[in-house]
Amino acid sequence: MKKTTMRKYARLLARKGVNVQKGQEVFITAELDQPEFVRMLTEECYRAGAARVVVDWSDSTLTRLHIRHRSLKVLSELTSYELEKWKYQADKLPCRIYLVSEDPDALAGVDVRKLAQSQQAKMKVIKPIRDTMENRYQWCIAAVPGEAWAKKLFPNLTRRAATERLWEAILRGARADGEDPMAAWDAHNEALAKRCEYLNGLGIRELHYTASNGTDLRVGLMEGSVFMAGGEYTEQGVYYNPNIPSEEAFTTPKRGCAEGIVYASMPLSYNGQLIENFSVRFEGGRATEVKAEKGEEVLSEMIAMDEGAAYLGEVALVPYDSPIRESGILFYNTLFDENAACHLALGRGFTGCLRDYGKYTQEQIAEMGVNDSIIHVDFMIGTSDLTVTALCQDGREVPIFKNGTWA
Amino acid sequence: MKKTTMRKYARLLARKGVNVQKGQEVFITAELDQPEFVRMLTEECYRAGAARVVVDWSDSTLTRLHIRHRSLKVLSELTSYELEKWKYQADKLPCRIYLVSEDPDALAGVDVRKLAQSQQAKMKVIKPIRDTMENRYQWCIAAVPGEAWAKKLFPNLTRRAATERLWEAILRGARADGEDPMAAWDAHNEALAKRCEYLNGLGIRELHYTASNGTDLRVGLMEGSVFMAGGEYTEQGVYYNPNIPSEEAFTTPKRGCAEGIVYASMPLSYNGQLIENFSVRFEGGRATEVKAEKGEEVLSEMIAMDEGAAYLGEVALVPYDSPIRESGILFYNTLFDENAACHLALGRGFTGCLRDYGKYTQEQIAEMGVNDSIIHVDFMIGTSDLTVTALCQDGREVPIFKNGTWA
Repeated sequence: MKKTTMRKYARLLARKGVNVQKGQEVFITAELDQPEFVRMLTEECYRAGAARVVVDWSDSTLTRLHIRHRSLKVLSELTSYELEKWKYQADKLPCRIYLVSEDPDALAGVDVRKLAQSQQAKMKVIKPIRDTMENRYQWCIAAVPGEAWAKKLFPNLTRRAATERLWEAILRGARADGEDPMAAWDAHNEALAKRCEYLNGLGIRELHYTASNGTDLRVGLMEGSVFMAGGEYTEQGVYYNPNIPSEEAFTTPKRGCAEGIVYASMPLSYNGQLIENFSVRFEGGRATEVKAEKGEEVLSEMIAMDEGAAYLGEVALVPYDSPIRESGILFYNTLFDENAACHLALGRGFTGCLRDYGKYTQEQIAEMGVNDSIIHVDFMIGTSDLTVTALCQDGREVPIFKNGTWA
Repeated sequence: MKKTTMRKYARLLARKGVNVQKGQEVFITAELDQPEFVRMLTEECYRAGAARVVVDWSDSTLTRLHIRHRSLKVLSELTSYELEKWKYQADKLPCRIYLVSEDPDALAGVDVRKLAQSQQAKMKVIKPIRDTMENRYQWCIAAVPGEAWAKKLFPNLTRRAATERLWEAILRGARADGEDPMAAWDAHNEALAKRCEYLNGLGIRELHYTASNGTDLRVGLMEGSVFMAGGEYTEQGVYYNPNIPSEEAFTTPKRGCAEGIVYASMPLSYNGQLIENFSVRFEGGRATEVKAEKGEEVLSEMIAMDEGAAYLGEVALVPYDSPIRESGILFYNTLFDENAACHLALGRGFTGCLRDYGKYTQEQIAEMGVNDSIIHVDFMIGTSDLTVTALCQDGREVPIFKNGTWA
């Protein structure tokens, strides 16, 4: 990829993604795939005023080795210095940038149960710390191409050509391939805000999903919740974009109110493992049955991660004309695929989707129906014949989606 | 490089380098240059019985950015979680493997004073912790090729060919290019032990270095010290090889006893910056004057790092027939160049070179003449016409080196 284009993308992530504030710290998590881009991003964060930028490199192959060779006890341990790093972040509230690039199937074949148990144990320690940070720091997930990921998408190209092709797809999907990506994001956020305004004006009580694949699901919404999209504000009032790309309008559903069955329309990469052709049945809001042609064990472990992992934490509507859907590419990566199709998420809901969430205690928020969990995993349900109908508080039925796109 | 050859090298580092003990932890520090080798090394450490292997990736380009953009205050800070990581290691005493591969001149042009000040500040916190670990854990420095380093050595080759050529040179120098590197190291350690036995039998009081380049230096040794070479034992009795390669017989000189001038015979890469064509004058053991055609400021900052940085901490004799000298390659990397030429080091001495060092307190060790400092930097003085003469305790004068090789 051309260096000037990469540089613009790096600046977009630093200025519009996390919107680094002068004197703030920045933590970047990245695989080893694109060190040159990580260096550019680091420099752009410093230029935006960061006092300290820290890069945490990770590597899926090493993760595989750790899962295999560490005992469950060791794998489950959060070391004292890892814990201290979480506390440091809870104290400093740095920006966090997550660069994803890994093979969607990088951890295929690992001991699923061992991995899940170790994550449960570690999250028990991390979650309370991370909870204190919620809505109080800027974060952004964005993608760069990794070779293995690129070859999965474009198996007939050389590694080099596949990687270049994936760069192009990522930048186009992220609206970062034009002359002025920052201006493009300003315009994009304005359009998304209008969409939310319309949806929030309807006073939706329930969404009803149907499709020819068998999907027939009703999901309840809370009265106090709103649809959000694109940029958000931290409690301190800093505007940032947590996902680049982001094409969805999403909200947090009412816990306990989901009835029926839903069929996934795309594979899901969770914990470095692919789950394909799967369905989830909900009763009283809870996922009571999952089936999958591939990765059923992974899916079962996922919804058993904790009590809230089997409840919904997000419903999201994605317009048909998103650049990602138009690319026609199946990315095998949630950040992209979720922006090409309507989706739901299992696990933690977004307190930020409550009007005036700052006024409520954690207990009140839970009572209102915002789900809590250590996981939050999106899965795609949008098909070309998906129908979504809104049942409104005033009794109206409003078609939202018809034949997979806005009605 | 062939995977089977790399695998043997990885095993050598895990088993003979740090000699991982069952249930021990291992910390690996590596640049981003050879991720595939780092993965092999991690796997070999697990196979040798490691309970946990942790890889800390570093990147010189990021380091440059940090030095440039962080304030002196931020650059000088050891964060709470970095401090905790040191404490964790002091507690767990893991093996530490340092894989070097960086461009010898990677940090050329950075603010030398700022870098030195920040290191002094951080070492003030780290050193007391690290001191408690001395002689109590296994560590090993070894090399893998980095592209920038390879291109510096072989500028006329393509990056790929230069890297391959450097792999070959590293493995040959490390005695890791044969059928059975582990057996080769056993034999090598035996030969080195014999050399030490001979040297220690002489009862050397002082070494006198002369060469046609103007070198004329006398360095005093302590009565209680011995020459060491190759493998060492931790206090717990684990045998390990701290340097791969290692061709030297070295000891720790008597602080305060160095008179004369010495001319470096090779460039020195210190803190990612090259110092070339330099000399050091010693009076009463202290470096009182340094001159360098290139990097004089870096050298001056170096000997001013603390009070002990201007005193000698090592004298080392290197035989003429080492595979590294025979390669004829100037590596611009101390790990290799120090094993192709007699050298000295400024800074911290080795308490391990004292007979029965465990019997003495830190104060007694200092009184006996072992230098202490936050730095320990080797520099090469061996030329083809170097003469080293030993003045022994019984008054004999024994020629050690003549015309650059063993007399």
